[in-house]
Amino acid sequence: MTKTSNQTFLLPVPAVAGVSPAAERLRHILGEDDTTPTPTIFTEMDTLQHDGEELEWKESARWVKFEEKVEEGGERWSKPHVSTLTLHSLFELRTCLQTGSILLDLEGYSLPQIVEEIVDRQIADGLVPPDLKEKIIFVLLRKHRHQTKKPIHRSLADIGKSSNTPSSKRLHFIYKSTKRNPAQSRSMNDISDTPSTDQLKNKFMKKIPRDAEASNVLIGEVDFLDKPFVSFVRLAQATTLGGLTEVPVPTRFLFILLGPQGKTKSYNEIGRAIATLMVDDLFSDVAYKARDRDDLIAGVDEFLDEVIVLPPGEWDPKIRIEPPKKVPSSVLNLNELGQMNGSAGGAGGGEDNELPVQFCGGLWLDIKRKIPFYCSDIYDGFHIQSISAVLFIYLGCITNAITFGGLLGDATDNYQGVMESFLGTALAGTVFCLFGGQPLIILSSTGPILIFEKLLYEFSKNNSIDYMELRLWIGLHSCLQCFLLVVSDASYIIKYMTRFTEEGFSSLISFIFISDAIKKMVAFKYYPINRGFKPDYVTSYKCECVAPDQGKTSNCPQFFNLTDLDWSQLSKKECVKYGGALVGSSCKYVPDLALMSFILFIGTYSMTVSLKKFKFSRYFPTKMRKLISDFAIFMSIMSFVGLDMLMGLDTPKLIVPTEFKPTRSDRGWFVLPFGKNPWWWYLASFVPALLVTILIFMDQQISAVIVNRNENKLKKGCGYHLDLFWVGVLMAVCSFMGLPWYVAATVISIAHIDSLKMESECSAPGEQPQFLGVREQRLTGILVFVLTGLSVFLAPILQYIPMPVLYGVFLYMGVASLSGIQFWERIKLYLMPPKHQPDFSFLRHVPLRRVHLFTLVQILCLAVLWILKSTFLAIIFPVMILGLMVVRKLLDLMFSQHDLAWLDDILPDKDKKKKEDDKKKKKEKKSVEPESDEEVRKRSRYGSVFSDKPTLTLMSKTVSVFFLKLKSCASLHLLRVCCFWLCFFLTNTVCFSSLSHSVAEKALYNTYYSLLVCPS
Amino acid sequence: MTKTSNQTFLLPVPAVAGVSPAAERLRHILGEDDTTPTPTIFTEMDTLQHDGEELEWKESARWVKFEEKVEEGGERWSKPHVSTLTLHSLFELRTCLQTGSILLDLEGYSLPQIVEEIVDRQIADGLVPPDLKEKIIFVLLRKHRHQTKKPIHRSLADIGKSSNTPSSKRLHFIYKSTKRNPAQSRSMNDISDTPSTDQLKNKFMKKIPRDAEASNVLIGEVDFLDKPFVSFVRLAQATTLGGLTEVPVPTRFLFILLGPQGKTKSYNEIGRAIATLMVDDLFSDVAYKARDRDDLIAGVDEFLDEVIVLPPGEWDPKIRIEPPKKVPSSVLNLNELGQMNGSAGGAGGGEDNELPVQFCGGLWLDIKRKIPFYCSDIYDGFHIQSISAVLFIYLGCITNAITFGGLLGDATDNYQGVMESFLGTALAGTVFCLFGGQPLIILSSTGPILIFEKLLYEFSKNNSIDYMELRLWIGLHSCLQCFLLVVSDASYIIKYMTRFTEEGFSSLISFIFISDAIKKMVAFKYYPINRGFKPDYVTSYKCECVAPDQGKTSNCPQFFNLTDLDWSQLSKKECVKYGGALVGSSCKYVPDLALMSFILFIGTYSMTVSLKKFKFSRYFPTKMRKLISDFAIFMSIMSFVGLDMLMGLDTPKLIVPTEFKPTRSDRGWFVLPFGKNPWWWYLASFVPALLVTILIFMDQQISAVIVNRNENKLKKGCGYHLDLFWVGVLMAVCSFMGLPWYVAATVISIAHIDSLKMESECSAPGEQPQFLGVREQRLTGILVFVLTGLSVFLAPILQYIPMPVLYGVFLYMGVASLSGIQFWERIKLYLMPPKHQPDFSFLRHVPLRRVHLFTLVQILCLAVLWILKSTFLAIIFPVMILGLMVVRKLLDLMFSQHDLAWLDDILPDKDKKKKEDDKKKKKEKKSVEPESDEEVRKRSRYGSVFSDKPTLTLMSKTVSVFFLKLKSCASLHLLRVCCFWLCFFLTNTVCFSSLSHSVAEKALYNTYYSLLVCPS
Repeated sequence: MTKTSNQTFLLPVPAVAGVSPAAERLRHILGEDDTTPTPTIFTEMDTLQHDGEELEWKESARWVKFEEKVEEGGERWSKPHVSTLTLHSLFELRTCLQTGSILLDLEGYSLPQIVEEIVDRQIADGLVPPDLKEKIIFVLLRKHRHQTKKPIHRSLADIGKSSNTPSSKRLHFIYKSTKRNPAQSRSMNDISDTPSTDQLKNKFMKKIPRDAEASNVLIGEVDFLDKPFVSFVRLAQATTLGGLTEVPVPTRFLFILLGPQGKTKSYNEIGRAIATLMVDDLFSDVAYKARDRDDLIAGVDEFLDEVIVLPPGEWDPKIRIEPPKKVPSSVLNLNELGQMNGSAGGAGGGEDNELPVQFCGGLWLDIKRKIPFYCSDIYDGFHIQSISAVLFIYLGCITNAITFGGLLGDATDNYQGVMESFLGTALAGTVFCLFGGQPLIILSSTGPILIFEKLLYEFSKNNSIDYMELRLWIGLHSCLQCFLLVVSDASYIIKYMTRFTEEGFSSLISFIFISDAIKKMVAFKYYPINRGFKPDYVTSYKCECVAPDQGKTSNCPQFFNLTDLDWSQLSKKECVKYGGALVGSSCKYVPDLALMSFILFIGTYSMTVSLKKFKFSRYFPTKMRKLISDFAIFMSIMSFVGLDMLMGLDTPKLIVPTEFKPTRSDRGWFVLPFGKNPWWWYLASFVPALLVTILIFMDQQISAVIVNRNENKLKKGCGYHLDLFWVGVLMAVCSFMGLPWYVAATVISIAHIDSLKMESECSAPGEQPQFLGVREQRLTGILVFVLTGLSVFLAPILQYIPMPVLYGVFLYMGVASLSGIQFWERIKLYLMPPKHQPDFSFLRHVPLRRVHLFTLVQILCLAVLWILKSTFLAIIFPVMILGLMVVRKLLDLMFSQHDLAWLDDILPDKDKKKKEDDKKKKKEKKSVEPESDEEVRKRSRYGSVFSDKPTLTLMSKTVSVFFLKLKSCASLHLLRVCCFWLCFFLTNTVCFSSLSHSVAEKALYNTYYSLLVCPS
Repeated sequence: MTKTSNQTFLLPVPAVAGVSPAAERLRHILGEDDTTPTPTIFTEMDTLQHDGEELEWKESARWVKFEEKVEEGGERWSKPHVSTLTLHSLFELRTCLQTGSILLDLEGYSLPQIVEEIVDRQIADGLVPPDLKEKIIFVLLRKHRHQTKKPIHRSLADIGKSSNTPSSKRLHFIYKSTKRNPAQSRSMNDISDTPSTDQLKNKFMKKIPRDAEASNVLIGEVDFLDKPFVSFVRLAQATTLGGLTEVPVPTRFLFILLGPQGKTKSYNEIGRAIATLMVDDLFSDVAYKARDRDDLIAGVDEFLDEVIVLPPGEWDPKIRIEPPKKVPSSVLNLNELGQMNGSAGGAGGGEDNELPVQFCGGLWLDIKRKIPFYCSDIYDGFHIQSISAVLFIYLGCITNAITFGGLLGDATDNYQGVMESFLGTALAGTVFCLFGGQPLIILSSTGPILIFEKLLYEFSKNNSIDYMELRLWIGLHSCLQCFLLVVSDASYIIKYMTRFTEEGFSSLISFIFISDAIKKMVAFKYYPINRGFKPDYVTSYKCECVAPDQGKTSNCPQFFNLTDLDWSQLSKKECVKYGGALVGSSCKYVPDLALMSFILFIGTYSMTVSLKKFKFSRYFPTKMRKLISDFAIFMSIMSFVGLDMLMGLDTPKLIVPTEFKPTRSDRGWFVLPFGKNPWWWYLASFVPALLVTILIFMDQQISAVIVNRNENKLKKGCGYHLDLFWVGVLMAVCSFMGLPWYVAATVISIAHIDSLKMESECSAPGEQPQFLGVREQRLTGILVFVLTGLSVFLAPILQYIPMPVLYGVFLYMGVASLSGIQFWERIKLYLMPPKHQPDFSFLRHVPLRRVHLFTLVQILCLAVLWILKSTFLAIIFPVMILGLMVVRKLLDLMFSQHDLAWLDDILPDKDKKKKEDDKKKKKEKKSVEPESDEEVRKRSRYGSVFSDKPTLTLMSKTVSVFFLKLKSCASLHLLRVCCFWLCFFLTNTVCFSSLSHSVAEKALYNTYYSLLVCPS
């Protein structure tokens, strides 16, 4: 050091290595007895004010976790904000603690007694001359006035109201008078031992944890002191000191700072500093356990050491910083949650480490996992939110049932119609929600099944095979195959479904929803608009029914004499029916309906979106906003049904069957298994059944993976095997009853989960509510499907709902399920200049061009899927998801594991490698990047569960390697792998060589069986 | 102090009073020569990295004002953010500066020479052993690699690209080899003396001020040192040191920290601390002027003293804090702007302090103020933004012209029709924009004028007076009265128009716009929808023209034989014309048009709103977003015109006259002043003229006050007197030509200003763009009106624009002009729970119930105005604005001046009182509230200009006092006051006693003249 300055800054902690003496000291006292957690501290800061000519303590700020200030003139609480302190005030506070008197574990029962002891101690320490005792006690015992909200309705009465304290005594006069009669000064204070009604009524109490204790900071300026009077008191027992605190919380700490006049601002800042320290987790621990003054000062030093500093030129201290979404201390809880969830919801149950793979192992585990939650699955459903969820999902379900019912009816000549669709939905849904592994999943008809049924019906009609009987056998085979998959724990394949696959699938389904909704609206070309219409020429627009030429009538069914008909009185349909000709320029037009449908469609959609967003607006209390947001869809439907009724136009309405009977009169409610088709069909139906099985398996499991995503924070675990079991059972039942087949519907299931999301009631003012998880229960699902079943009786009400409104809801569901998908966020990045891009963690770690490349691959995959979906190949759609998994595998060649870890998840067998890579890199670079939540998530999801398992090489090896392994046929694991490869090839073959190639069929049949009988 | 701790914190500044030694020292060195402002500093921090096995300096962060970090893996710049430092690193930096070597004003011309000098100094000071010299120099001269963006299109080519530095020499091997041949180490470094192309191409240069100098922070970890090597260098001359800096900016400062291994994070933090200090305004000054080490340390201490501290428990240091909207240092500039503006735009010219009130004084001042800007008024208009403004306002103007033209035509039997409206708008607008005082004001027909014309026409028709001649005389009188108001500087009355009045008026006008737009849409009941329409019964809907009974045809004009007509071929109109009857159920319905109009209306409005908001989205580069936002209205109009054309429906279109001739064939383009009415009408028209004058005066001046609001930051001053003069002249001209009268239109003027707002190009990354003001020029206005005039020729294009689209634009204009009104913000507060309310400054200072009460009063006033407006009293509408001012005066009794100062402005005569009150309060309370911008605004607006003028008691005194003053008739000021009181009473009387009460008239006439002849 060449020169010395007259100011010395010693570092509280030596530069880099080693632990500071302060930290050492704290470790010692905090480690002493770690058993009792310290209570939460509520801090109130009161300052000495003149009300009229009287002295009083006025509340000026309070802290639960963040600071709330009383606005000077506004007589209101500020918003909770982060306390921005000056370094200055912290140093001054440190000095105060060094010089003032510290009274630890003082036995105190009332404020006057405590105050007396404090002053006596100061006098004993020689800090205050004894003659000031009276004055100090007088000041400290002044009445406390708290900031409590005045009701608005009193405002008019307040106009011109003058101060209600007409006392005009001067301050020193009070001092004088009280000097003579000390008893009077006691009696003048309003501090009683019992909490006042104001205190008890204070609604703020709700925001303070039950075990909380108060710390009171009293800051004042008096004219009789010439140096500050500082005292820090910890009571032996937390005691309610009358009206000292705003809320009836017992006081544990007292900090008193009285000083000479002229330094109010400085004193206030010191008060804010100690108050902020008191609500600091670490310092409050120190304050509870401090043995002496030095412990407290060590606490301040430790606080100083962790403090974050903003440079004065880059920040305006007047800005109140909003509380952050998350503060470091709460990260721990989140991690715990994530881990607990990761192991439960991971993939097929995390317990399979302990348990060797065995017959029915997965199913048994699922049941074991689900049984303990069964009761709570019911009673957790009793919540207002459930009502909105039921209404929302119910409407989604019946719309789906009607849409698919109608389409199925068309496809199968009404062998399965709307009625069957309703009954099937109700039956399958109720059973699944009652007994399924993941009752949040909603079963529904899906597109691939529809296409399959259509092809099957055409096939059987062309080959004169009884459709219902064939279908029954396919169902039975498929059910059996599902059981086989359950037994072989094949659901473990889902661990190869990374974010890439999930997102590809769910985006595709969302796009299908959106495009379907829009297609439906475009279909309103059935109501063509007369574009050339001129209001003035209304006279020239007409549509008349003209009797047919007499010569041609012979073709028509002649129920009665056509010449007797008044042709001009016939309606359009009747006219056509009787062979009349429609003549006129308005015949092919339908006015208003198309535009009205459009208005209803767009209106419902945009109103739902706006109402959903309303939760984040500033208006109305939080609860009301939440209610509005929860019931957004219901309210928009109601509004636009109302509008539709008001307009009274003949828009297409929801038509629900009103009678309980099969749509086609020549079929019953039970399909007989034998008698109509040749016997060998009972066996041959195995092959199409295989297709159905894959279809169902993939659809079901991907939806389940999406539902079980870590982001949803499900706590009751998953049940992939159990789900598949019940889907299989329902296959069989539905086949016997001639009802459609059901499988998990991605979009509606996501909507179901979204409508059941829970957020924490924010505890401390300013703390952000945390997403806690989903209201996991079976009640909403059951209710939805029971209601669906009862819809036959609700027809009179339901018939008022226009279809465009429901399509609007569909559009909303599609769009809503897209949001929150990382893939979608990455697509948006294409349109953003880098400087405007949000601060995603993957952007911090992966170069932008790699991110874009990854997104591009996903887009291409989706495009291919979309094109395939639009052709007849739609039937192998779920198989193509397997294709996605292959693409994902190939991505390992294009991207580094580091990039993939950020953009996607690591495939199981790469997980180990990745970790090693990471370790190496860390050694090399000594990376200082702190471990992020994302990383914790990844680790918890795939870490312990899969990395120790035998390496699976599902699709990475060539077919030759695969066949070598096939011969060895070593484990059940391999069987699973084989099943899938085979299915993949099979279905492709089957599809391309059309449905009936018995030779190919038998060959495949044999291969499959040879695999199954292979000893394990 | 009872105990001593082994750590001593000395306060950098003594507790409260006095100045610290550090501050004293700084005051000394900064005060030395204050003449030369120090350059802006750009700081770059480079850290020592291993690229392959080679050492290099890699850029890791940079600062212009805020910090931008290189994301570790992302290879991208982070968003600019506030540098959050640890207290620790600041103390360590302080220690570094105390112990390291400080080289001030080093003569340096190249990096090797500078580095050599640095190391030599260290060796001389005994800080480094001489044998390390080579090694240190070697390390310091390694190549610098800067973070420059790679283009995205290279991403595919990058796949699998391996590192291009295949060198595999080990670090110590390099050391060894260079030890033997020192010259080689020099040659190995890539640092040249001329800036590289990469440097010159760097677009970041745009963000750095021209005069900037660089400070380079080099932080590295090496294995041969056992204690840190610290050096702070200031060069005597800023020198470009080759590739040292990312941009070709000469380097002035160098901070080097090399240390032993293992403390990378700590070293990085110290580097960030010095970098942050270097861009701090105060510290950079200190660094430039420091004489020795202690000056620098004093600078650090001063920085520490102003630092803002965030408690660790309430903030997560990982959060990057977005740069604030405003930092303390830039407040100064804003205030300057505000003040400059306040004096220019205040009220009628701030110069009238220096100038005694005199004949035509205001007008003369206005002209003097405007002349110097005349040239810039033209060339400031050449900007892309002007095009969008012209298009937008043009469409607004012609819609207005057509609407009012149509209404005027109805009201005056086409004496003034759409043609006159177009011509008048074009003429008046062009003249006003060419010569007016505030060319941003858009002239238009307004509601009150329309009502007046209507009443006048009815009156003259009933009394057989020639309407055009009477109107001419009224116009002439009114013109004269306007001149009188100009001459008497009556425009000074606007200083009584506080925010209360302004907001009341502009909200009302906005509501009228909104309600008009909606009313227009409801008017589409002219296209009734057939609600009972059933598509199937299309055959029963028809409308036929049936020939009238032969007996009744005698009443019809028989041009030809009606029986010859083919009645069924007639159109609706023809049918009615020839007396036919329309028979059929579809006659009274018009399909599709109503709904289509609704879609166009809502669509245009919502698209405009969304596109306007697009400016704040993240997508696309800033310029493009701005363009989209600027052209929002044009784009929406185009889109929906396109949609309309696509649909091809016969929606009501904009119809523009195509021929240049008066609407009514019996009138010409010039009205003769004499000959049609009795002579005394020429004089009597004085009285209605008075009404028109008030109407015009209030409408004009309030709109002008709103346009000249301080918020708009107008720089070229106002011209209330000049404006009124030209409005008067145009009155006369329009009267002679039989065109409608024109006056400032509030909403369109606001829209004009909004479309011309300028924002600063943000200079330092992260700094918020500031609203700079409005593109003040005459060009847009002139173009708008010339285009309006030419619209007669544009009719073929304009006829494609459907009216509903234009009503959508109207709705947008109404809604947009509401936003940004404080009154509107306060209304919203009713719906917000206090904790969600935004942090308005008035909420901090005025109790919520008082705010609500104030808002309630305003709402009541508006409601009364609205009700009055809806009755025939609409004609005295502008007079009611005077009523608003009375209400405002009465509010002085209900609210304290303190509250009013926050919620409204202080009335001129209260201004003094308020200031005294404030002073008192400040003394009493020693209020610590810092002075806010709002306060500065208030002061600048009313401070010096009005507080010294003779007290005006406009409406506060009773009528008796008023008449006493009238007798004394002392000054022109009083005359102004009198004129207004008189006008107020007059118009009330006139209105209530209908238009022709000659007795009352003459009495008033006399009174008025007696006032005028009163000697001043």
